[in-house]
Amino acid sequence: MLTGEMFIGATAVRGEHGSVHGINPATGETLQPAFGLAGANEVERACALAWAAFDAYRDTGLDARAAFLERIAQRILDLGDALIERAVAESGLPRARIEGERGRTVGQLRLFADVVREGGWLEARIDPALPERKPLPRADLRQRHIGVGPVAVFGASNFPLAFSVAGGDTASALGAGCPVIVKAHSAHPGTSELVGRAIRDAVADCSLPEGVFSLLFTEREAAVALVTDARIKAVGFTGSRAGGMALVRAANNRPEPIPVYAEMSSINPVFLMPGALALRAATIGASFVASLTMGAGQFCTNPGLVLALEGPDLDGFIAAASEALGANVGATMLTPGIHAAYERGVDRIAGNAQVQALARGKRGVGMHSCQAGLFATTADAFLKDTEMQEEIFGASSLVIRCKSLDDMRAVAERLEGQLTATIQMEDGDAEAVRALLPTLERRAGRILVNGYPTGVEVCHAMVHGGPFPATSDPRSTSVGSLAIRRFLRPVCYQDLPANLLPQALRDDNPLGIWRRVDGSLVPAAR
Amino acid sequence: MLTGEMFIGATAVRGEHGSVHGINPATGETLQPAFGLAGANEVERACALAWAAFDAYRDTGLDARAAFLERIAQRILDLGDALIERAVAESGLPRARIEGERGRTVGQLRLFADVVREGGWLEARIDPALPERKPLPRADLRQRHIGVGPVAVFGASNFPLAFSVAGGDTASALGAGCPVIVKAHSAHPGTSELVGRAIRDAVADCSLPEGVFSLLFTEREAAVALVTDARIKAVGFTGSRAGGMALVRAANNRPEPIPVYAEMSSINPVFLMPGALALRAATIGASFVASLTMGAGQFCTNPGLVLALEGPDLDGFIAAASEALGANVGATMLTPGIHAAYERGVDRIAGNAQVQALARGKRGVGMHSCQAGLFATTADAFLKDTEMQEEIFGASSLVIRCKSLDDMRAVAERLEGQLTATIQMEDGDAEAVRALLPTLERRAGRILVNGYPTGVEVCHAMVHGGPFPATSDPRSTSVGSLAIRRFLRPVCYQDLPANLLPQALRDDNPLGIWRRVDGSLVPAAR
Repeated sequence: MLTGEMFIGATAVRGEHGSVHGINPATGETLQPAFGLAGANEVERACALAWAAFDAYRDTGLDARAAFLERIAQRILDLGDALIERAVAESGLPRARIEGERGRTVGQLRLFADVVREGGWLEARIDPALPERKPLPRADLRQRHIGVGPVAVFGASNFPLAFSVAGGDTASALGAGCPVIVKAHSAHPGTSELVGRAIRDAVADCSLPEGVFSLLFTEREAAVALVTDARIKAVGFTGSRAGGMALVRAANNRPEPIPVYAEMSSINPVFLMPGALALRAATIGASFVASLTMGAGQFCTNPGLVLALEGPDLDGFIAAASEALGANVGATMLTPGIHAAYERGVDRIAGNAQVQALARGKRGVGMHSCQAGLFATTADAFLKDTEMQEEIFGASSLVIRCKSLDDMRAVAERLEGQLTATIQMEDGDAEAVRALLPTLERRAGRILVNGYPTGVEVCHAMVHGGPFPATSDPRSTSVGSLAIRRFLRPVCYQDLPANLLPQALRDDNPLGIWRRVDGSLVPAAR
Repeated sequence: MLTGEMFIGATAVRGEHGSVHGINPATGETLQPAFGLAGANEVERACALAWAAFDAYRDTGLDARAAFLERIAQRILDLGDALIERAVAESGLPRARIEGERGRTVGQLRLFADVVREGGWLEARIDPALPERKPLPRADLRQRHIGVGPVAVFGASNFPLAFSVAGGDTASALGAGCPVIVKAHSAHPGTSELVGRAIRDAVADCSLPEGVFSLLFTEREAAVALVTDARIKAVGFTGSRAGGMALVRAANNRPEPIPVYAEMSSINPVFLMPGALALRAATIGASFVASLTMGAGQFCTNPGLVLALEGPDLDGFIAAASEALGANVGATMLTPGIHAAYERGVDRIAGNAQVQALARGKRGVGMHSCQAGLFATTADAFLKDTEMQEEIFGASSLVIRCKSLDDMRAVAERLEGQLTATIQMEDGDAEAVRALLPTLERRAGRILVNGYPTGVEVCHAMVHGGPFPATSDPRSTSVGSLAIRRFLRPVCYQDLPANLLPQALRDDNPLGIWRRVDGSLVPAAR
């Protein structure tokens, strides 16, 4: 079923600039076939097709575009077990996890189909003409949002389905009316080909211009060529800080700079408030480790930092967490490279003279398994050593012993931007939490109470984003329906004749969308 | 009344790093007093105060914040004639224009007060918990927008009131809950001191933390220090492409990059469709010149490019425009520097071998008057010479003679990003316009029919923005109520206890704002 080809629009193309294989990280086995890599020529053709498709694609009606997203979802389901098996083999992730991720991927596509149909993303505004106004009449002014243009999406290693070829970036960009060119992650080329073909086929099913979607396998040079092509107008990326910043720099240095939405680096602090620790230190310790070690800790929202007041209650948490962690058998990590980077990171923190090693998990049986780690330091030491804030991608966490709530807040103030901040609290902690919240709001995209940050709900209120370096653009989210806004820009129409107005802005509101008229919201149902 | 001091929070401070004077461009007269310039110390103090004020200020209620904006408006009106006279003296602009601009400035502040009260900018979203959901329950998730943090605003030369100390950037940032530090434009320091004091006093009137507003007079070095201070989280700028890009680069090179909203460079093409030219070439010629020469052409939206099919109708337009332009007596330009740059730009275009000089206006009586210019070239020549796209700030425009509608569209496709694109058309031109619109939507923030781009309405549907280099961020507008979004970011709250939720997200909706509940819009009135 796999051919090792990419898709330049509708055409399956074998790249001729080297090749890459999938590797089963659990066994080290090289998976067939070889996937040919793109050169400048393939990037050029994909961009030309995307550009040629843009005007027609963004002009599709809401129902047609929504049906296209739903068709992609169905095509992915139609891949059946072949997709699941290949993704498991390439990622080392358990079958149940991959099945769940497929459900999430399909659910995301359907969510954006609903969002597209509802039409709120158009943010239609109408300020009718005031011909009698003195001293000057007001023209008729109408505004809607349109897609920014073709979008380059970089698949992530850690979600081979939900943050990859047909993941949230692709779904939201397509929803916004933007053609998408995906640069597949080299860790799961077979999964990428399968999903890429599903999208390619959905494009054909829906009679859309072929340039709406292309899939490239590339090395670094061609990836930069993609980001710097003048026809690409925005970039979505999930991955490392170094990788994200390289794309940000490339995008900033273009003659026409473009936005890059890079979701990069977060250590997701967990604040254990005194009342919660007093009541349930042991329970929190165990549940915290479950969150920390889930999926070998390979989540953007993995809890890599714990803040608490020193004392017997914290000792109780540490004892319980150490016990749970010590019993944890490491799962296989996604790639040999990720595993090696994890080991380096853990060695670095373990070798820090200001850091105490609390517990290590057990090595798993397969190759490249993640041996979890729990460490501790003091607030003073943490504040003096910025290296301790560096993300270690995998199941490693650092406990900061604080002397006081002020100390805890001081550490919070010095944290870099985060995707999440978690609070474990009881009613009696409310005042302390109230004092902490303004800091957390400034530092994180999502604040959660008495849960854990892993497990990101795909819904309307989700923010999977946050200040730098959690992302390169804190004004947005890469998960949830607000993600569509990343790929939109407003356009204003002044005194356009009725027969030239876009449907979203016609007097009779044929799309049946809510609009702002003279500043007031006017809901309307179809 | 003027002291030459800046405002670091509530404190009037005389800068000691050199000084600057206002200059009357019409007479060359140096205006008193001298304004002392800030050093690193003043920048540091202003940033520290802004940072200290941020949490308290963003926590103000909707009514309190709106009342503050209205108080600024009233304080500006209370300055009375002293403000008008100083602004006229410093800008060379006519009294009526400055009075109109004051009205616009006050109106903008009141518009944002209304926007703040309405609360739609919070974009509150609630996805209630689904404890029974299988396989996993859903947490309670709620989202609102908060201010990004302290904002640096760079006043523009060409709107000493409406795009300056209390202009649209300041009003929208304050509306978003962000403290503002204004870097005054050196062309109108006295106007800036007066308006700065009005805001400072309004801060005190409303018992807000003093750091909510500071006003700095600076040279370049301190201005860069302001943009690169870690406590500044966004920048608003209106001015030249070189100036804007210098700030963009400084912001991108920070350890934590921040968004810069720079409104920079646009030549605002005007498309004269065949039917319109056939019917009213002479009328269009005269009205076009009125727009071109208004305010000595010193508007971001000045029509610097005209596209039309060659032939007798275009000749008729050119004859009428040349006649009107020849009769135009140049008005004083804003500064000697702007006048010199205009003269250089006109000399450059006039000296281009592919350009034909059509008409020049009359020199005005004062110093630094703008002698309007109208030039022509062919589409072929324009497409080969990117220099012809460079903005000449002032009353200069270039007519492109096109051989066909395809030729016209080809030129449109090659244009850099624009604030506006204008179409003069009749009913018979509808099909040609329909074919042109997709290009214009991709190239401009506002498309207008049978009007002129000068005169930007401050309303809800306005877009004063557009693709690069019109702005550094096409996802926004610097005029109109949507401008508030530039200074906001979303925050998500997961399972927060009711007593810790922000008002915007409480079940009982005490703010009476519209919200999205489970994705559906639920309007609510107070």
